[in-house]
Amino acid sequence: MAETVEYENLTQADAGTDGPVLMTAPANEDGLDAAAAAARRLIDAMVRLGDGTGYDTDALADRLNALAKEIEAELPDEDVRLVEMWQHEGPNRHDLVTGPENPVAVPLVVHGLPDGSVEGTATLPIAYQGQPRMAHGGISALLIDHTLGMANGWAGRGGMTARLTLNFKRPVPLGRPITINAKQESVDGRKLFTNGTLSVDGEPCVTAEALFIAGHLPRPTAE
Amino acid sequence: MAETVEYENLTQADAGTDGPVLMTAPANEDGLDAAAAAARRLIDAMVRLGDGTGYDTDALADRLNALAKEIEAELPDEDVRLVEMWQHEGPNRHDLVTGPENPVAVPLVVHGLPDGSVEGTATLPIAYQGQPRMAHGGISALLIDHTLGMANGWAGRGGMTARLTLNFKRPVPLGRPITINAKQESVDGRKLFTNGTLSVDGEPCVTAEALFIAGHLPRPTAE
Repeated sequence: MAETVEYENLTQADAGTDGPVLMTAPANEDGLDAAAAAARRLIDAMVRLGDGTGYDTDALADRLNALAKEIEAELPDEDVRLVEMWQHEGPNRHDLVTGPENPVAVPLVVHGLPDGSVEGTATLPIAYQGQPRMAHGGISALLIDHTLGMANGWAGRGGMTARLTLNFKRPVPLGRPITINAKQESVDGRKLFTNGTLSVDGEPCVTAEALFIAGHLPRPTAE
Repeated sequence: MAETVEYENLTQADAGTDGPVLMTAPANEDGLDAAAAAARRLIDAMVRLGDGTGYDTDALADRLNALAKEIEAELPDEDVRLVEMWQHEGPNRHDLVTGPENPVAVPLVVHGLPDGSVEGTATLPIAYQGQPRMAHGGISALLIDHTLGMANGWAGRGGMTARLTLNFKRPVPLGRPITINAKQESVDGRKLFTNGTLSVDGEPCVTAEALFIAGHLPRPTAE
């Protein structure tokens, strides 16, 4: 295991226990967050479109490549961007699962709850299809792994996944609200034991048990 | 478990065993595949850009929303599109993991090998970051789950994931080729036991053991 360090998280002890506390970054209505939301809308439309209509997808490719080229000319140095990504206190805005500025993020919204658990909510669009009209099992794995990680932070000490076991009980439908409940159940030295369940309409669809090891990789820092 | 049916897959028995056989849909150089590739390029540029440059991200949001609106006016009926998605023999072009026409797909490329195993390859861009400069553990879970599923098809009988256990041994770096090797190890009635390993530079990073149940949900069909 690589050398790890510990960071401050938004913990229940810091946040108080009066009610649900938002743990993920809320989306701004303008700037990069708005562009990421528009990109998600575009992705959804493209998957729904298919190649069977008369729509000019060659021209769409040209227009998207032109946009990409325009942005590529403005990119900051990669090391500078990485430092920026990781400098913020609280939730990362670039995050793959919850990040409002990442077009690939669903995004999942996570609250810390007074009972020491966390709850994530999302609705999955058709791009995440596995079986017909159902979510891919692997996207449930991604969302659950992330929510378990946030449950550790809420409990006071975060870590990295060492072992994750998922039991798939019933398919997860697309287009309907999913809820992921997760809680750190016990700690043994650096070992964090964390469980969770993904439910739809109160019915458990996927359950998870995980072992995390406390600590994180060092964050990028400026020279 | 919902009612399931069985489908023909690309199996080793059908494909012969002379060498690696491509199991995933190759990307067309035009049409929707080209647009999806351009969308991936755009997503990558947006994540690399951040909100710290002078680039006009408000205007970008407007332009992407205008594109999405234009496509939304051309969408086929959802049921028609679903039938189209699932009508093809062979690999699904819309697939979340391997699909050339899905902008959210990495995409992973999978070959069936003469020894009865399958091998998936990909390189993960920065949108899939978990720890700094490393892939999110959950994206490894998604790619591995999918590759295990394809290993079942290659062995002759596909199914749906019932239990998946992942052991994370070392972080998976972004921007470098990853390889996922997977094989169906045994069958007991409808139970399929399938193992896999995600490696980088020949070093195992994530290992997986899974139980699948043979069969799939029914495909959408025209009235």
